[in-house]
Amino acid sequence: MEKIILTGDRPTGKLHLGHYVGSLKRRVELQNSGEYDKIFVMIADAQALTDNADNPEKVRQNIIEVALDYLSVGIDPEKTTIFIQSQVPELAELAFYYMNLVTVSRVQRNPTVKTEIKMRNFEQSIPVGFFCYPVSQASDITAFKATTVPVGEDQAPMIELTREIVNRFNNVYGETLVEPEILLPSNAACLRLPGTDGKAKMSKSLGNCIYLSDTAKEVSKKIKSMYTDPLHLNVADPGHLEGNCPFIYLDAFCRDEHFERYLPEYKNLDELKAHYTRGGLGDGTVKKFLTKVIEEELAEIRERRKKYEQDIPAVYDILKRGSEVAREAAAATLADVRKAMRINYFDDEELVKEQARKYQG
Amino acid sequence: MEKIILTGDRPTGKLHLGHYVGSLKRRVELQNSGEYDKIFVMIADAQALTDNADNPEKVRQNIIEVALDYLSVGIDPEKTTIFIQSQVPELAELAFYYMNLVTVSRVQRNPTVKTEIKMRNFEQSIPVGFFCYPVSQASDITAFKATTVPVGEDQAPMIELTREIVNRFNNVYGETLVEPEILLPSNAACLRLPGTDGKAKMSKSLGNCIYLSDTAKEVSKKIKSMYTDPLHLNVADPGHLEGNCPFIYLDAFCRDEHFERYLPEYKNLDELKAHYTRGGLGDGTVKKFLTKVIEEELAEIRERRKKYEQDIPAVYDILKRGSEVAREAAAATLADVRKAMRINYFDDEELVKEQARKYQG
Repeated sequence: MEKIILTGDRPTGKLHLGHYVGSLKRRVELQNSGEYDKIFVMIADAQALTDNADNPEKVRQNIIEVALDYLSVGIDPEKTTIFIQSQVPELAELAFYYMNLVTVSRVQRNPTVKTEIKMRNFEQSIPVGFFCYPVSQASDITAFKATTVPVGEDQAPMIELTREIVNRFNNVYGETLVEPEILLPSNAACLRLPGTDGKAKMSKSLGNCIYLSDTAKEVSKKIKSMYTDPLHLNVADPGHLEGNCPFIYLDAFCRDEHFERYLPEYKNLDELKAHYTRGGLGDGTVKKFLTKVIEEELAEIRERRKKYEQDIPAVYDILKRGSEVAREAAAATLADVRKAMRINYFDDEELVKEQARKYQG
Repeated sequence: MEKIILTGDRPTGKLHLGHYVGSLKRRVELQNSGEYDKIFVMIADAQALTDNADNPEKVRQNIIEVALDYLSVGIDPEKTTIFIQSQVPELAELAFYYMNLVTVSRVQRNPTVKTEIKMRNFEQSIPVGFFCYPVSQASDITAFKATTVPVGEDQAPMIELTREIVNRFNNVYGETLVEPEILLPSNAACLRLPGTDGKAKMSKSLGNCIYLSDTAKEVSKKIKSMYTDPLHLNVADPGHLEGNCPFIYLDAFCRDEHFERYLPEYKNLDELKAHYTRGGLGDGTVKKFLTKVIEEELAEIRERRKKYEQDIPAVYDILKRGSEVAREAAAATLADVRKAMRINYFDDEELVKEQARKYQG
């Protein structure tokens, strides 16, 4: 069986370092590993509209941002199909049929849905589309016969629901859909990068994000004002690592070679941490080092972005071609689904013959 | 503005006299009135699957039954587009976007949905697809820019929800969709024909239906065993009309001319009723008369049916051509909808230019 990845992002804002260490970087590694036959990366505009119906312009403007972010981090359209969800109408049709295989209470019990509803303060006014998005996600995954879905642990209940839908479908209509596996992040530090203010998550509305598209100056400024250890008032004081942003970021980004290059007084991060903990190491030194480490990756990303920004029509062309490829794959699955459900009446010569016999008999 | 009708039936069984007086007969009248520019009649297989996911074969087998019933009662494929819902995938896509414009609690409050859920004993295990069918119905109606939906009073809350979705869509995305009007039955007697056993509704599972496809012998037998007045033991006894099936059926079917032809002792139904009420008129006489009255209409229907049954491939061809016409109409609406939502990225040259300017500026 082919190994196929499906993954993606909602285009509701530019992507930031949290996305980068949490998923983008890994996607590029998976892409370049040569282990997968096909990789689909979806810009989930239709899903974004489920809770942004009143603000379609936000979604629309961010599609190109997300596409530029993808291309800048090294997602290669020659190896990975980048597509826009709404341009593959087959996904809506699949979701429509899967909706018959899941109960309302099953969706209500889904812990991810519960959390998301809480996060959005929806309570009683959840849009039906938002409520149904786990089913829509099952459609996105199965449309491409994805075997592998690289997501965080918080998404595990969603993948579980997809597996249930696949099983239910195959039981009722015959073996048709592929059951996907979740691929969890291997590096714990990458699971979730806090905001620059120390809050658990980077969030556009909190203004605590470092964006992939930030200039070197912006990045440097944001790192300078990063939340560290409020008890570490003087350089000589012992410092604490817990919740200390520069160190959490270093956990995610720095390798021993960075010390050789930028801070040869230390051999590795453990030595730096030890010094900080016993006192005598200023936050400024750590932040300067972090800036250099992060800039090493961001500079390359920024350069690629610049190139693509110069030719926006080419980026649209990549999205258009990707969407065509994705549509073809989804259409093939949909044809299988319709055949399995036996609702392909006009292609089903046996049906006409059988019915004709019935009335002549 | 064009006057357009959308209506249809779920293909979960053959159609019966209840359908005939409640809707089919009127559709033929509307079709032949010349007052409507377009008429779409939908065989709602996708909707039927929302609560028959486990039994797709039932739905599949009944599509041709319903089509034969339509053609036999005089729905004319030259004047009316008969199509199969699942063959118009645009309907699923429209529903997908409308789902963002309705809240879960709004659907839950819908009295028709409440009743239907109760009828099916769903309680906690309502399939998501069934729960969402009012949204899907809004998609069916608006896809054809229907101005007129001829349904019973019980469906009024559904049409109201469609009107809400239309208004919400037009407010958010600009004037695009047409608000439909409900067209209620004009004849109170036709609102709901009871089963032959006197139960409120004809229902396949109760075995109390007279089908349009029944033979003359079957019809006669069913009328003979019809529920009348349990207190009317002897012909001489005064009879009661309330809940008396033959009289309710006569209310729906008989005209004065029928008396001339088959029961010239009476001038009209009022005279017959008066005699029955004061006593001296046997149920047998009423039932024989009813049989003749109903047979007058059924004979013609049966004859047409026979003709179509001889050429099942031609019936499929009618459905196929109708589905193509319907698909074209729905695709045009969907294109309008996508344009209004501005998710037609690849047709939107302004978007590319605007974004290119943004990054070069």
